[in-house]
Amino acid sequence: MGSAAVNGHKTLNGDRSNLISLSSRLYEGRALSLDVWSIYNAVNLPADCINLGQGYMNFPPPKWVTDAADEALKTTPANHYSHPKGRIRLRQAVKNFYEASFNRSLDVETEILVTSGANEGQYSVFTAFLEQGDEVIMFEPFFDQYLPSVTFNGGKPVYVPLHPHTQGEKPTSNDWKIDFDELRRAITPKAKLIIINTPHNPVGKVFTKEELEQIAVLAEEFNLLVMADEVYDCLVFDGKEHVRFANLPGMWDRTVTVFSAGKAFAATGWRIGWLIGPPSIIQPTLAATTRIVFCTNSPLQEAAAAGLEQARERGFFATQNQEYQDRRDILLRAFDRIGMKYSQPEGSYFVLLDVSGVQFPEDYPFPKTIDGRGRDFKVCWFIANEIGVSSIPVSEFYCDEHRGIGESYARFAFCKDEDTLRMAGERLLGLKKYLA
Amino acid sequence: MGSAAVNGHKTLNGDRSNLISLSSRLYEGRALSLDVWSIYNAVNLPADCINLGQGYMNFPPPKWVTDAADEALKTTPANHYSHPKGRIRLRQAVKNFYEASFNRSLDVETEILVTSGANEGQYSVFTAFLEQGDEVIMFEPFFDQYLPSVTFNGGKPVYVPLHPHTQGEKPTSNDWKIDFDELRRAITPKAKLIIINTPHNPVGKVFTKEELEQIAVLAEEFNLLVMADEVYDCLVFDGKEHVRFANLPGMWDRTVTVFSAGKAFAATGWRIGWLIGPPSIIQPTLAATTRIVFCTNSPLQEAAAAGLEQARERGFFATQNQEYQDRRDILLRAFDRIGMKYSQPEGSYFVLLDVSGVQFPEDYPFPKTIDGRGRDFKVCWFIANEIGVSSIPVSEFYCDEHRGIGESYARFAFCKDEDTLRMAGERLLGLKKYLA
Repeated sequence: MGSAAVNGHKTLNGDRSNLISLSSRLYEGRALSLDVWSIYNAVNLPADCINLGQGYMNFPPPKWVTDAADEALKTTPANHYSHPKGRIRLRQAVKNFYEASFNRSLDVETEILVTSGANEGQYSVFTAFLEQGDEVIMFEPFFDQYLPSVTFNGGKPVYVPLHPHTQGEKPTSNDWKIDFDELRRAITPKAKLIIINTPHNPVGKVFTKEELEQIAVLAEEFNLLVMADEVYDCLVFDGKEHVRFANLPGMWDRTVTVFSAGKAFAATGWRIGWLIGPPSIIQPTLAATTRIVFCTNSPLQEAAAAGLEQARERGFFATQNQEYQDRRDILLRAFDRIGMKYSQPEGSYFVLLDVSGVQFPEDYPFPKTIDGRGRDFKVCWFIANEIGVSSIPVSEFYCDEHRGIGESYARFAFCKDEDTLRMAGERLLGLKKYLA
Repeated sequence: MGSAAVNGHKTLNGDRSNLISLSSRLYEGRALSLDVWSIYNAVNLPADCINLGQGYMNFPPPKWVTDAADEALKTTPANHYSHPKGRIRLRQAVKNFYEASFNRSLDVETEILVTSGANEGQYSVFTAFLEQGDEVIMFEPFFDQYLPSVTFNGGKPVYVPLHPHTQGEKPTSNDWKIDFDELRRAITPKAKLIIINTPHNPVGKVFTKEELEQIAVLAEEFNLLVMADEVYDCLVFDGKEHVRFANLPGMWDRTVTVFSAGKAFAATGWRIGWLIGPPSIIQPTLAATTRIVFCTNSPLQEAAAAGLEQARERGFFATQNQEYQDRRDILLRAFDRIGMKYSQPEGSYFVLLDVSGVQFPEDYPFPKTIDGRGRDFKVCWFIANEIGVSSIPVSEFYCDEHRGIGESYARFAFCKDEDTLRMAGERLLGLKKYLA
């Protein structure tokens, strides 16, 4: 052993710090480049910066939900392997909670699958269905994990932008529109899957029934698998209606709907999600997730089950929805006071602020990490450092070709307590002097 | 929409139960076939059957460890996203606990990665490093998840059997030997990775320093990435020495070592594992796991951290190791009483019983699910139903070509409390009348 042992793959030259070559899949899908979450991580920003960048709560899950985790931890079975399908108590709770909203009975053995967070659930669907070169259609701006999750499994993302028609006085997230001719043109014979995220991150758009029906026509015509990412389905404001894509005529057979305990119960660190769909989608996805993670953590499945079991009786989701709407409005009133435009979100816990009018000194000391990125990267950095409120630049959620659309916007998360949002609002008043 | 909309991929003929074709990766790696765990699942066996099949404990984690999970659940941060690298408390605890056994200092930012169980950690290594067609060498019998985890990521398994030299009176797991000429012949220019599992599941073999040194020579010569699956490193009996592969000269640079909180703290349902290795392996694996699961559940990371923090002071692992050795011996004495041969395991919580002498009626009502499988499938079914103790047939852990080696053995798990093992021992006395 040692330097004399020249291997067949590369010359070592004594440098042993990179002996093994990486998979090419890491070079695709931006997986090795510095992601937006690392750049705008709290450690890189002023210590007292208010974090409205990342989408997690600064409050805990309800005590009656965490109590159920405590109970589970006291038992033997809930500390050991769960069935890869998920614990039967949680699958039963999912069945009872969602059957009405799907207008059908759900089979706990073949139509419900617990996953290690919604993210891993989506990844497993890609693993189960994508063949090398299969195309996956996603609307921009897109949840950034979609891209590498698709390419890691051999898929090819096809981007279709939502177009902001936000010239009016009081635009809403519903003013971000699909160009259906553009969508149709994007669907080639290689298209296998389309992702629909409603309510939408980061736009906050709740897709209308008419929009979803038009997508359904295309899904049927081109035989697409539909991933309905509805993790924000419990956060819909102003009396808008959330329409489940799977409920449109014929769509159940080709749709898997994605859910997240993290979003539903303010527990983003629990990594519990679930999928609902027909056996033809759930069973292959089970085969994938079983190999990827084997099963999902047991104690927090019990807690999520308790959450769903008791939610109706406690009026939990109605109350929580109103609380989020109130949080949203605190932030929106702050934007109003400084006269900045935003797309009023109808759902999710994000709002897009139009930051195209924010002026910053050309010689401002921006970090090297944002060189060559969109103007919004600079604006977000400037606001975080000068005003003390962090947000996320939206061009990150576009392909290079379309990133110009995103450059006008910063995403602010309002999944924070009211005091924090009020303080952020006070600070944001300081932005006024930088507006053109 | 409807039957008129004939899609480009297949003719529907009105049957909408299988609209979307699966990825070919599911057809490889046995991912769609009925696995051994489903066949020998408790629901298929007599209600009072003692489960020594699956490798999980029938006792809970230590209370001082679950208490830390309770504490974490009371806080806000430990209910929300962790850094994809893992929570800093756990990474720090891993560093402090393992540095001595690796004879080096460990960098919490670049050399330690928390994963969603050891299984997901291994999967992420394959995702990060395997290119289509890369070969992965694994010793048989192999942990069955290796196979689909490799093929899902485009890899090709290459099987090298351990050969049982168990003719002697009292064979041990160390009598399962590598034929090093056979191993060398198996390594082609396409070889990228070799998996070493020590202590070994299911054989219980603790690889000797000499064996590992011979593997190290080949790893260097052929520039192989080494996955050292050492999840049973805290269970080594009879004063044997567990040798870390990464500690052999030069091997740190090409080795990632895999650990499991589930095995260490009797918490198989927590899905917490960690990897230790050089930055050149850990960083790409971080890029992979970040996309697959984003991060690992937070509250149980805190609990695992508490476990590692307090283990030394409490003498936890020394006590636990003795408890497992006592459990093992209860089962071995039972085998001795009926005069059956086994390979005395030096590590892990499994023992291979030689069941080649067990006779069963040719017309015994075996289920269809084991048609065409090895003789050991029938023996295990027979023992579970007639004697009331379940075990796992070992031919499942071999490729078809080599499965004859495994057909003589059944795997019994002794990660069960002593009363259960004693009762299993009593029942196994009933096997005597079926021995040839």
